[in-house]
Amino acid sequence: MRGNTFGKAFSISSFGESHGVAMGVVIDGCLPNLEVDFDLIRTDLARRKPGQSVITTARNESDGFEILSGIFEGKTLGTPIAIIIRNTDAKSSDYDQLKNVFRPSHADYTYQEKYGIRDHRGGGRQSARETVARVLAGSFAKMILRNMGVSIQAYVSQVHDLELKKSYLELDLDQTEKNMVRCPDPEMAEKMIGKIAQAKEEGNTLGGVISCVIKQVPIGLGEPVFDKLNADLAKAMFSINAVKGFDLGSGFEGVKLKGSEHNDVFEKNGDRIVTKTNNSGGIQGGISNGGDIYFRVGFKPVASLLLEQESVNVGHETVTFTTQGRHDPCVLPRAVPIVEAMAALVLVDHYLRNSTIKMQPFL
Amino acid sequence: MRGNTFGKAFSISSFGESHGVAMGVVIDGCLPNLEVDFDLIRTDLARRKPGQSVITTARNESDGFEILSGIFEGKTLGTPIAIIIRNTDAKSSDYDQLKNVFRPSHADYTYQEKYGIRDHRGGGRQSARETVARVLAGSFAKMILRNMGVSIQAYVSQVHDLELKKSYLELDLDQTEKNMVRCPDPEMAEKMIGKIAQAKEEGNTLGGVISCVIKQVPIGLGEPVFDKLNADLAKAMFSINAVKGFDLGSGFEGVKLKGSEHNDVFEKNGDRIVTKTNNSGGIQGGISNGGDIYFRVGFKPVASLLLEQESVNVGHETVTFTTQGRHDPCVLPRAVPIVEAMAALVLVDHYLRNSTIKMQPFL
Amino acid sequence: MRGNTFGKAFSISSFGESHGVAMGVVIDGCLPNLEVDFDLIRTDLARRKPGQSVITTARNESDGFEILSGIFEGKTLGTPIAIIIRNTDAKSSDYDQLKNVFRPSHADYTYQEKYGIRDHRGGGRQSARETVARVLAGSFAKMILRNMGVSIQAYVSQVHDLELKKSYLELDLDQTEKNMVRCPDPEMAEKMIGKIAQAKEEGNTLGGVISCVIKQVPIGLGEPVFDKLNADLAKAMFSINAVKGFDLGSGFEGVKLKGSEHNDVFEKNGDRIVTKTNNSGGIQGGISNGGDIYFRVGFKPVASLLLEQESVNVGHETVTFTTQGRHDPCVLPRAVPIVEAMAALVLVDHYLRNSTIKMQPFL
Amino acid sequence: MRGNTFGKAFSISSFGESHGVAMGVVIDGCLPNLEVDFDLIRTDLARRKPGQSVITTARNESDGFEILSGIFEGKTLGTPIAIIIRNTDAKSSDYDQLKNVFRPSHADYTYQEKYGIRDHRGGGRQSARETVARVLAGSFAKMILRNMGVSIQAYVSQVHDLELKKSYLELDLDQTEKNMVRCPDPEMAEKMIGKIAQAKEEGNTLGGVISCVIKQVPIGLGEPVFDKLNADLAKAMFSINAVKGFDLGSGFEGVKLKGSEHNDVFEKNGDRIVTKTNNSGGIQGGISNGGDIYFRVGFKPVASLLLEQESVNVGHETVTFTTQGRHDPCVLPRAVPIVEAMAALVLVDHYLRNSTIKMQPFL
Repeated sequence: MRGNTFGKAFSISSFGESHGVAMGVVIDGCLPNLEVDFDLIRTDLARRKPGQSVITTARNESDGFEILSGIFEGKTLGTPIAIIIRNTDAKSSDYDQLKNVFRPSHADYTYQEKYGIRDHRGGGRQSARETVARVLAGSFAKMILRNMGVSIQAYVSQVHDLELKKSYLELDLDQTEKNMVRCPDPEMAEKMIGKIAQAKEEGNTLGGVISCVIKQVPIGLGEPVFDKLNADLAKAMFSINAVKGFDLGSGFEGVKLKGSEHNDVFEKNGDRIVTKTNNSGGIQGGISNGGDIYFRVGFKPVASLLLEQESVNVGHETVTFTTQGRHDPCVLPRAVPIVEAMAALVLVDHYLRNSTIKMQPFL
Repeated sequence: MRGNTFGKAFSISSFGESHGVAMGVVIDGCLPNLEVDFDLIRTDLARRKPGQSVITTARNESDGFEILSGIFEGKTLGTPIAIIIRNTDAKSSDYDQLKNVFRPSHADYTYQEKYGIRDHRGGGRQSARETVARVLAGSFAKMILRNMGVSIQAYVSQVHDLELKKSYLELDLDQTEKNMVRCPDPEMAEKMIGKIAQAKEEGNTLGGVISCVIKQVPIGLGEPVFDKLNADLAKAMFSINAVKGFDLGSGFEGVKLKGSEHNDVFEKNGDRIVTKTNNSGGIQGGISNGGDIYFRVGFKPVASLLLEQESVNVGHETVTFTTQGRHDPCVLPRAVPIVEAMAALVLVDHYLRNSTIKMQPFL
Repeated sequence: MRGNTFGKAFSISSFGESHGVAMGVVIDGCLPNLEVDFDLIRTDLARRKPGQSVITTARNESDGFEILSGIFEGKTLGTPIAIIIRNTDAKSSDYDQLKNVFRPSHADYTYQEKYGIRDHRGGGRQSARETVARVLAGSFAKMILRNMGVSIQAYVSQVHDLELKKSYLELDLDQTEKNMVRCPDPEMAEKMIGKIAQAKEEGNTLGGVISCVIKQVPIGLGEPVFDKLNADLAKAMFSINAVKGFDLGSGFEGVKLKGSEHNDVFEKNGDRIVTKTNNSGGIQGGISNGGDIYFRVGFKPVASLLLEQESVNVGHETVTFTTQGRHDPCVLPRAVPIVEAMAALVLVDHYLRNSTIKMQPFL
Repeated sequence: MRGNTFGKAFSISSFGESHGVAMGVVIDGCLPNLEVDFDLIRTDLARRKPGQSVITTARNESDGFEILSGIFEGKTLGTPIAIIIRNTDAKSSDYDQLKNVFRPSHADYTYQEKYGIRDHRGGGRQSARETVARVLAGSFAKMILRNMGVSIQAYVSQVHDLELKKSYLELDLDQTEKNMVRCPDPEMAEKMIGKIAQAKEEGNTLGGVISCVIKQVPIGLGEPVFDKLNADLAKAMFSINAVKGFDLGSGFEGVKLKGSEHNDVFEKNGDRIVTKTNNSGGIQGGISNGGDIYFRVGFKPVASLLLEQESVNVGHETVTFTTQGRHDPCVLPRAVPIVEAMAALVLVDHYLRNSTIKMQPFL
């Protein structure tokens, strides 16, 4: 049964195989009369794009997008917005030798078993190239959120064992885009870049953690008891390739606090109610409380190594192989806009699902 | 918009406020002709039940359930199964003094802001009493999975700073139910019990981690790219009250491995293909690969302390208050069947969504 | 896969077998803070109730409903509203002889083939007793619509070959409830009652048509291109037992008009735009235009005769049988509140799905 | 909230404005490993295409489709299938004078009121050009159904007052495609063609009825109580532009039969159970019974006349205007493949939703 649609009110449908004709997305449920910020789309695509620096894959995707519907004279119509990006620089021949190999920790084997067929070229549908559809859709979600005053900023907080211990409150998040690893701490960024360069030289790959902070969130987003805002964020992040962990607010560290230490005491702040601490990460009972939402997303090291590996082929024979093609030694820097896009999609979806709260329409 | 339904094929709708007339669930999409195991329902309810040991809350819920529909002569009809449990031992007067207080790290404030009204008695809809609906539905999911040979076993692997470092492979999971904290390591269990008893005495609360292992999973469950099996497990767990973290397989620890260390190499095992290691946690590309699925769920310490606390009331005045009522110093032991129930619901839902894979129907 | 839920924003889940423990409904997505009009619920239940007149079945359903959740101090909480009605007067023994018979034009055979099991008592899930769940939920939808000024009035416009040719504009719809057949034309009502009484005497049954008029509809309801308001009304009506036809506005008669005769010309009416004629039935392009919505629903004669009939049993043997039990010679009068309920559910669902139109929230 | 997706298991998302860049569809949930019949796609597109005969519009749509994803080496992958058709022959200038006019019985006014913006060129999203997406998707549904032995045949049974009284059983449906009006009765076809030619000359338009017959339907399709097979067919048909009526089996005529006349008596036929008559139209209790499904769909005369008309413009002024552009005097012949496509989508969706019935997988 279909699994390529995300969101109930602001709903996106993603399509495309890595070396097929095109990747694309259809957004159904976008607000009408929204002025489209084409620069924002271009900027986010560029942030996700391969080959943007020496530490990312060299695949030269032009990522020139074409909008097929839903926009008229620069504004959204309220009808479905379809956008495609053609796959132009795909070198399918790089994958010929892998046609029959089940690469370790890729989804070759599970796709083959589930569907009885797969497009082996560039990983087909399992390729992280699919995330370009999410970034495209996420740009529209960001436009709506920006009009509401909401900001979403993700950054790399860990690469391998290099962990930025500082809270987001101690960081200048505007530094994030100033270095190629997208870590807002310049000193740590330099170390991370060195570590990734070293892994690249080895033909190896590194994992890490992306942190994300959402500010100025309206109170009341989230639909208990199953579609809690945190539950939908967890699903959104875990739908991204290579994600192995998600925690919110105090997260896994918070389990070591006692209730008296963890509780976020309310206090008055002018005519608003705020919390003195924010271990809850801005969400209580599945509903946003107006405080900052912050969370961590853990990524495993990607499976495409440039080292010789052992595996099994479709004939169940043991084989050794070496991956060709162009691959990231560490996907974290390029995954930053993807995390932001998925967060934006969740927030806008919940905003538009919400017919009961006291929020004013902003248009 | 509605958020009280979970699952697309095996779909459950939960209802009920803690001190309302009844809690309940409607299961729509259960397979017909399934012999109902009433003992399994009773057992799982008893495992979730308050007051089962000295370290849990003393609320005496009888949890006697009544099946209203969907079952005929001991078998499921394929029509909706509605089950209710009346709220009999609710002492609403315990909550009178809290009527106007926004308790810290509870959802009093967010419910009030979102809906403009709330049932303050026992936390109303935000109460973890709601999870009884999930356990009821989960029992039916477990019956189906059991017929397929799938087993789900959760256990407490951490309480506060007491962390069971052993992998599930080193543990005898059949020990889990032999102690009241539901930790399969008897020595650690004893320490945890001591820690919880101490917290109880202090009027304080403790968080922790529940680990869950699913064995004999059919290959092919999960619907990329958004409804990945891991994504739906993440959402399911994060929909449980007090959950702050989720990781799968190597999880947050795995980000410190290099790709060459993390990749799960395939090998033949008779006529099957298996992986030498299982850092993937049994899911690759969002699809089950037949290996064990294992994951961790982090719970914050619950917010209901028996200590005096400060907060703000509906009139925005600063107040101090002390929680009355009966509360768990640590919810982890009782949350074990809830984690299992949610995992069972995700698996059965994906099994029934799957019209394309080669799995044989088992009935 | 589940099929017992209706509506995306105002969503209802129906459950119950005719002779099981109880019928019921869970409403998820009702607006909070709505004052519950218990009299409206009772009135609509009474209108649907069997045995209300000499021309309806004698089954004495008390239809005493119990609200289990979602309401606090007389107001909706915004949480799921669960309501049940116990099946008290069911005489299951009436159905013993039919246990193995596939009654003609009932769903005994299709349920048995689809599910491999069925509750034969009173038709089980296929029984029109299920519609009590819809009337219960519809009452809540009507409360919301009433607050918006919207009115829904259905009436019997045809019984067998007795057809009320008058348009709703020529009728006084307040007469509808003044006779037991629910036809607003007193003269025609009398004829219909005579016809039904005669059929009852014969042990036979009659079909007919219910017309429905919805006034003061906000402009902008309906979500093209698939969830058009007319498409969802068509589905809603066709989900009612025994319905065989639905048409809107000019309907099947309108196909005989030319475009120049059928087009509804716009004109100014103060500061509003209205149409001179209303062949469109208040919906254009799937979106309400503010005019009256009116439609017809055709019901076949119900299949439960008190005459001897031939059929086949589960062993594929030819049998003759005579239906026992209490059955309506004509369901039309009792189906009037069911048609209204389904219409109300569609309208409220579309109202709450609508985050973009200019309508003001009414609470 | 989104309304451009149809189907729960075999799910299609339609996009595109009439004079925008392209029309398109994404199919999510198609079975993998299906051999794609490109000729079937071309044939159905040609049947829907404007300008195929002297009685249809002269717009020269090449309707050359491009498949962007989901197909590999001629077979479906089980991943989303995206297909687009560019809008090449659109003469937007024809619509300049209508930019500010609300055309009678079009959706200009309701789109403007709902969204606050609209693409006026060629009707934008309200244009029946959108149905090309349905025909594309329907072709894939037909491929699956054909493999199962199911056939779907629609034909024109009424144009204006020319009504084909014969049942489908008396007709040779293979004659349907042999004349340009798609009526299987050659004599009636000739009359219809004459009538349409006359209307064209007048600049007027005609409505009519399309009948549809589905044979060899598996028993067990349909999900009571809301997603009955008939309910989903009703919705599917009413989602097509200009549809005003739908009836199934005996339909509106059947309301004039008594129960004893209407009931379909079961009898043995070899080792199968069949009905002697088929007033039910192949569906009982919302579930297919293996008999022929047949239904009627009533279309109003289309609103685009070539006669001068009166209306109101966006400034609420009364105006007169004459439609330019190329328009069908009667859409019925071209709507035949659209009705078939929607029927095919409903059937395949229900087939793939059905995890419980005894049907064998056919691949």
